Amino acid sequence: MSAKYDNPYVALKQIFHEPNRLAIVSALCGSIDGLTFNELKEECKLTDGNLSRHLKALEEAGAIKIEKTFVRAKPRTTVFLTDQGRESFIEYLQALEQVLRKAAESAVIAEKDPPRILSWIKPVRA
Amino acid sequence: MSAKYDNPYVALKQIFHEPNRLAIVSALCGSIDGLTFNELKEECKLTDGNLSRHLKALEEAGAIKIEKTFVRAKPRTTVFLTDQGRESFIEYLQALEQVLRKAAESAVIAEKDPPRILSWIKPVRA
Repeated sequence: MSAKYDNPYVALKQIFHEPNRLAIVSALCGSIDGLTFNELKEECKLTDGNLSRHLKALEEAGAIKIEKTFVRAKPRTTVFLTDQGRESFIEYLQALEQVLRKAAESAVIAEKDPPRILSWIKPVRA
Repeated sequence: MSAKYDNPYVALKQIFHEPNRLAIVSALCGSIDGLTFNELKEECKLTDGNLSRHLKALEEAGAIKIEKTFVRAKPRTTVFLTDQGRESFIEYLQALEQVLRKAAESAVIAEKDPPRILSWIKPVRA
């Protein structure tokens, strides 16, 4: 957890918290040589339009770098995590871990007393 | 991880993924007797308007129950997690834990520094 935040939930208000962007950045995090647009599309199960939109947002935040090259006269788009993106993402994961641990501890504390929970909390059928 | 999802990122598209709602539900999860509006406001560092808005969304999703009573002629609002809310929240935490582990493992592969990063990951006991 970064010392920047005294409330870990604040650290979640980052570009990485959107589920599809989390999938994209996690995939990039494991690939030093970057991933092509098509590899990312397949890995994250996204449409061209959705992937483009998220990549644009991540690029504008400085988290990724997009390179367009030609391979045998065909255009290829390769996406890399920047050093800054990697650092921010690790900071985000640390905050997430802290939040997850807090929540899991609360869940365990409350579950140690199930009869009382049941008497107080009636399920709401939506 | 619930068998409902083959992609853990899909499970994050839940009402709990918004950071303020995550703070609210984590707080409620640890309190068998529920929390008053003012306790939640203080715990989650939210304004009246923001807390009301998130509580409404959580109530509509069936995750919480809101009780209005009078204590010494003063109105008191108490908020409880429902059984359904608790179940869904635990499912969400399990998905989050899986996503976090995946991301941290990717980070480890790329950084070749397993001891430090793997220490973030603690199993969630639900």
